[in-house]
Amino acid sequence: MTDDSTPTLGIGMVGYAFMGIAHSHASRNAASFFDLPAVPRLAVVAGRNADAARDTAEKFGWHDVETDWRALVERDDVDLVDVCTPGDTHAEIATAALRAGKHVLCEKPLANSVPEAEAMAQAAEAARARGARSMVGFTYRRVPAIALARTMVADGRIGEIRHVRAQYLQDWLVDPAAPMSWRLERDRAGSGALGDIGAHIIDLTQFITGESIVGVSAMTETFIDRRPIADAGGASKLGGHASGDDLPTGEVSVDDAALFLSRFSGGALAIFEATRYATGRKNAIRIEINGSAGALAFDFEEMNTLHFYDGTGAAAMEGFRRILVTEPDHPYLAAWWPPGHLLGYEHGFTHQAVDLIKAIAGGDDPEPSFVDGLRVQRVLAAVEQSAAKDSAWTTVGN
Amino acid sequence: MTDDSTPTLGIGMVGYAFMGIAHSHASRNAASFFDLPAVPRLAVVAGRNADAARDTAEKFGWHDVETDWRALVERDDVDLVDVCTPGDTHAEIATAALRAGKHVLCEKPLANSVPEAEAMAQAAEAARARGARSMVGFTYRRVPAIALARTMVADGRIGEIRHVRAQYLQDWLVDPAAPMSWRLERDRAGSGALGDIGAHIIDLTQFITGESIVGVSAMTETFIDRRPIADAGGASKLGGHASGDDLPTGEVSVDDAALFLSRFSGGALAIFEATRYATGRKNAIRIEINGSAGALAFDFEEMNTLHFYDGTGAAAMEGFRRILVTEPDHPYLAAWWPPGHLLGYEHGFTHQAVDLIKAIAGGDDPEPSFVDGLRVQRVLAAVEQSAAKDSAWTTVGN
Amino acid sequence: MTDDSTPTLGIGMVGYAFMGIAHSHASRNAASFFDLPAVPRLAVVAGRNADAARDTAEKFGWHDVETDWRALVERDDVDLVDVCTPGDTHAEIATAALRAGKHVLCEKPLANSVPEAEAMAQAAEAARARGARSMVGFTYRRVPAIALARTMVADGRIGEIRHVRAQYLQDWLVDPAAPMSWRLERDRAGSGALGDIGAHIIDLTQFITGESIVGVSAMTETFIDRRPIADAGGASKLGGHASGDDLPTGEVSVDDAALFLSRFSGGALAIFEATRYATGRKNAIRIEINGSAGALAFDFEEMNTLHFYDGTGAAAMEGFRRILVTEPDHPYLAAWWPPGHLLGYEHGFTHQAVDLIKAIAGGDDPEPSFVDGLRVQRVLAAVEQSAAKDSAWTTVGN
Amino acid sequence: MTDDSTPTLGIGMVGYAFMGIAHSHASRNAASFFDLPAVPRLAVVAGRNADAARDTAEKFGWHDVETDWRALVERDDVDLVDVCTPGDTHAEIATAALRAGKHVLCEKPLANSVPEAEAMAQAAEAARARGARSMVGFTYRRVPAIALARTMVADGRIGEIRHVRAQYLQDWLVDPAAPMSWRLERDRAGSGALGDIGAHIIDLTQFITGESIVGVSAMTETFIDRRPIADAGGASKLGGHASGDDLPTGEVSVDDAALFLSRFSGGALAIFEATRYATGRKNAIRIEINGSAGALAFDFEEMNTLHFYDGTGAAAMEGFRRILVTEPDHPYLAAWWPPGHLLGYEHGFTHQAVDLIKAIAGGDDPEPSFVDGLRVQRVLAAVEQSAAKDSAWTTVGN
Repeated sequence: MTDDSTPTLGIGMVGYAFMGIAHSHASRNAASFFDLPAVPRLAVVAGRNADAARDTAEKFGWHDVETDWRALVERDDVDLVDVCTPGDTHAEIATAALRAGKHVLCEKPLANSVPEAEAMAQAAEAARARGARSMVGFTYRRVPAIALARTMVADGRIGEIRHVRAQYLQDWLVDPAAPMSWRLERDRAGSGALGDIGAHIIDLTQFITGESIVGVSAMTETFIDRRPIADAGGASKLGGHASGDDLPTGEVSVDDAALFLSRFSGGALAIFEATRYATGRKNAIRIEINGSAGALAFDFEEMNTLHFYDGTGAAAMEGFRRILVTEPDHPYLAAWWPPGHLLGYEHGFTHQAVDLIKAIAGGDDPEPSFVDGLRVQRVLAAVEQSAAKDSAWTTVGN
Repeated sequence: MTDDSTPTLGIGMVGYAFMGIAHSHASRNAASFFDLPAVPRLAVVAGRNADAARDTAEKFGWHDVETDWRALVERDDVDLVDVCTPGDTHAEIATAALRAGKHVLCEKPLANSVPEAEAMAQAAEAARARGARSMVGFTYRRVPAIALARTMVADGRIGEIRHVRAQYLQDWLVDPAAPMSWRLERDRAGSGALGDIGAHIIDLTQFITGESIVGVSAMTETFIDRRPIADAGGASKLGGHASGDDLPTGEVSVDDAALFLSRFSGGALAIFEATRYATGRKNAIRIEINGSAGALAFDFEEMNTLHFYDGTGAAAMEGFRRILVTEPDHPYLAAWWPPGHLLGYEHGFTHQAVDLIKAIAGGDDPEPSFVDGLRVQRVLAAVEQSAAKDSAWTTVGN
Repeated sequence: MTDDSTPTLGIGMVGYAFMGIAHSHASRNAASFFDLPAVPRLAVVAGRNADAARDTAEKFGWHDVETDWRALVERDDVDLVDVCTPGDTHAEIATAALRAGKHVLCEKPLANSVPEAEAMAQAAEAARARGARSMVGFTYRRVPAIALARTMVADGRIGEIRHVRAQYLQDWLVDPAAPMSWRLERDRAGSGALGDIGAHIIDLTQFITGESIVGVSAMTETFIDRRPIADAGGASKLGGHASGDDLPTGEVSVDDAALFLSRFSGGALAIFEATRYATGRKNAIRIEINGSAGALAFDFEEMNTLHFYDGTGAAAMEGFRRILVTEPDHPYLAAWWPPGHLLGYEHGFTHQAVDLIKAIAGGDDPEPSFVDGLRVQRVLAAVEQSAAKDSAWTTVGN
Repeated sequence: MTDDSTPTLGIGMVGYAFMGIAHSHASRNAASFFDLPAVPRLAVVAGRNADAARDTAEKFGWHDVETDWRALVERDDVDLVDVCTPGDTHAEIATAALRAGKHVLCEKPLANSVPEAEAMAQAAEAARARGARSMVGFTYRRVPAIALARTMVADGRIGEIRHVRAQYLQDWLVDPAAPMSWRLERDRAGSGALGDIGAHIIDLTQFITGESIVGVSAMTETFIDRRPIADAGGASKLGGHASGDDLPTGEVSVDDAALFLSRFSGGALAIFEATRYATGRKNAIRIEINGSAGALAFDFEEMNTLHFYDGTGAAAMEGFRRILVTEPDHPYLAAWWPPGHLLGYEHGFTHQAVDLIKAIAGGDDPEPSFVDGLRVQRVLAAVEQSAAKDSAWTTVGN
């Protein structure tokens, strides 16, 4: 139970759309379910579109709105800057916030390039000396089944890791009429499926295994290279409903799909696939890990479940166990409902907020750090380099 | 988007525990994701244990606390009384609230007996003439997959219904050391698995099919009839950790499991099972419906999924489809995340709040009504009667 | 390995259709995969339709054909009479064979009535004194996953049994145009879904649990009571393709579906359903058993799999295990393929032949015995009696 | 129905172990379930170990045994030579048989090298001019669900193919104590997981898509490079039970696992993995194909099921359909049991025999041809080449 003596942590959030909503909900609800050493206070949300920012603010109880993130970063009532913008702005905002002495939570991928990410990691390191903490928002680490997987690997439940196979499968670009968005522009998004969703499975597999990806062999593809611009012209201007053929189109300058082989630092072989063209799969983050003593399997489309094979038991009595990760001694679950009452997507963000606030209040370094984010960025860069040179094996830099 | 001109709806909640927390979260978050004609205001929570009530109030932002529900019912800042207490108090609180001109949301089961439920339904009918709305909290109706199932049946997608099989399976009483609770006392809970979880599958199958249960043949069982009293004495008093054998025990005066055959008004055969002894099943609400043109299957342990078999297609191309109920045109989903990003248990409560607020603001009768709750109560009574007379067929009263 | 000194067992099979083919394949192949103390010799097949019997004989290598089962029963080259005819002829054929000193394998259900089954059990007992063995063909007992389930229950892996739920779901009668067959006539088949498929789940649950059903409360239904006669007239006589409306129809005189509650001798509650109207389910024999220490679940549509929940482990590490029953130390599997190479429907018949031949050669009583078949028959009778008197609880006779 | 005028096809089988048994069963049973234009006659089995060959002969009814395959190839009662030996002998036996005018069925992979496979394909082409047919035994093509997948792709049900992901996962080498076998020696087996199981998913994906793999980027690994020699010494010689440490060991000279990226001729991206170290997976042939109009998914551990997503329907009503491939109009199924009665591993071999006999009798070229086998061999070679040069993209030769 929180009482009047519990300190607050003022949050300033930059961005108000998909991620902004998920973070708003998390910041508002974290202290309702978890006992926190500091209670988040939704101080201010910043967005260039004032009306849209104000809408998010009203819906979630943010106390104020700014239209310039620079103003937000300088406010005294902001202790933590939460960066929920597209990737091309991460470096500037996060760095400024750290310099202003704020803690920073930055959405993933950390940046759009390795140099940006390096600069951010350096800024984080410098700020850390002054007591400012930083974290990158690989929120899927906080799905309880993923957190359980990490614990089980660390406890040796599957032994030495031999195989990792990871897929992040979506299908929202299968339809050629699906419109352009900033996620399809290299300048804004850095890359396509690779950075948007591939980054998640890179981070998750490194997190769960506790190992690093040391090299890759990759290929990427853009299946459909021009798409209609959704709001170009608009129905009224054209005097009626515009057919797909009439619409102006924009160039898709990022990958639609990225595949790569890799090797982990412990010697495991790995195979990765990220695509937005996997017809029928909506948000299938699928991770399988085979070790010398057991195996784990996960699919986000059944996010409350972790499959575990215990290779140390009698084979005749063993099979993949469908662990429903809703028991009170599962990660994060003591705060929620009785067994069998499932959690959803946004719970990952709530758990992220909880872990971050506890770290800040406790003077600890939250994870994943900007260095973790940089590590992912280097894998992304190696993938693009390998794909550009006929899949040649490419070492991931340090 | 809500603006300053949007009216508010003052909520007074009685009870602060499991259901109180779920309702608090729903009341606070409904307007954050849905455009509502009235914004819920968390006015006051009532509970005899003032500290516990205050804790829930602080965590969710309730403006005030009362220790007597009678005071809450009379407050001017309360438009809607939300009854989250054990079943033995529903009738008194709900009836008083309706008489005081308040709208009422009452947790399920509606009451602990048919006479109580009849009185409540009459009170609701009388209050309705004065503009007060009432609803019973069969929240699982608001799980999107369930709502979709109801729509599909109503649209004729599975034709004439032949078979209903419904199970609500939990296992929290398998351990003989699991302690007594109010849920195991007939005076408080009315019945055991039957009323607590059996009531849900009775309501859900009637809701999805749009039909009524007309008769039952039933059996019930109490496997373990005495259980330790968890807080009796306590470790310190006993000078150490009390073993299970030392603890005083209480009598389990309700059913542990209830099974019944039944027939629906349209002629379908049905088979029901509610138990807290289904080892390995945590909260498995499993419903299958076979019709002349297709079939549906649902399991709450995969609550974002509905399985559908289309019997009108070529058999060689058909099989149960695993519909991931996260598309924007699925019930309630437009307000949430992109496809494949799952919802959890508490979303059902948020959707319940949304539907109730819309009905109140629109002058409509929300569903399920107290009459729907009474109908479930009559089935519960028929089950107990049949079980008491050697499973003889027992007609459900009107 | 068999050698020239291995004795042979002459088989005479009565019937040549669905079951006749399954048994022919089993008799021919059993010694190819299993080391048997006697090699089955396919001596003679009997059928009133000589051409059809000869066709089965040629396809599977039967040495001779008879058109009168009485001649078959008397032949010296027949040691075992294998009864694969509809239920109304079981008693006469099996009894005559036993009197002639032959071993008997009789398809299920054992008979069409309790008196017939009693007479058969008595005949078997009398014949046993003269060295003739008898067995009833509940072949699903020989599915490896079922045999494993029985072993696990006997080994105490799930503890004291609390719940049994069993369903046998098919959908071949959903189409009103599906034609009449002997399976829909009470005189031939005894009953409908109840005896044809319900008998299997009655036998299987008693087999797996090692307990008996002591009483039932039941309901049955015939959804469509007249069906077209498939070969009545025929297309040529009618001068073209006969539409369903033109065809003469016959009366369905058996149940389409049967449901019942029951209690097992050890105190477990059980719920049974057998139907041919479960749209989308083709041959779903689904059995779940919850005990005080664990649980089992099986579905014949995934017949190589047994799901097991170990209730004695730490809940956080447990979940239903999907045991692929293809390991060499699983029942019957040492004779077959490497792990992960699945078995099919007919393997159950091969295993049945193996077990029967081993019992005969070893002088042991094979199981299930005619007494086991009688026990199932008594449950079937109790179900029909209860259904006829408003589901009143009906004790199963001894 | 076969009658006396049906011709026979004399079969001579070389090899008697795992594959020899599977082929024996198929040859004996094909005509029992399918109407064939020629009835297979089990003429002779050849094996260097006369006792072992005679055992297989007796168990399945082979008329004769040879200890030298050269004698078998020359026999007049042999029309078809069925090659079931390790890969290092395929080329010599198959070529000799073709030269002797026999039809040939050769187990996969076709050979141990591309030059061998080329010579075999040339021999097959030359023999074809003289009426001799040849086929390579990629038996999984005859699993009904796979055959259905191929038909559905050919019918355009999933549109233009974008993604292929294929895995063949086993775990029998996870245990370091698993002994040496010919499958682990390069001289005998050609390669390891790559040729043994990887060859299957290469053939299957090319078969289902109707496209060719045009290039690869690969990596391979041998996790454990020495293993105990199972029959070296033996317990008696050592005067007791030999511990694993005492046993002499042999060198594993093949890959334990092989992974590769690839591209299909139609532009699809593909990802392949074959391993014997996937703890918990026994024989998981998993294939997923995403197209512009739909998707398919298959897992051999549920071999009677094909999952299909129809991307052309309304998204709200669609999901992966679990098609139980047991309907009479599914490939091969009309010959078998009613819907829902599953098939097993050996049925693929029976279907293979059926298709081969029909092609031979009809004067048609059976598939997969030796050219198809050569095509797989070229992919295997490209994988090894790419793995040897740091995963560099390697074009598959023509």
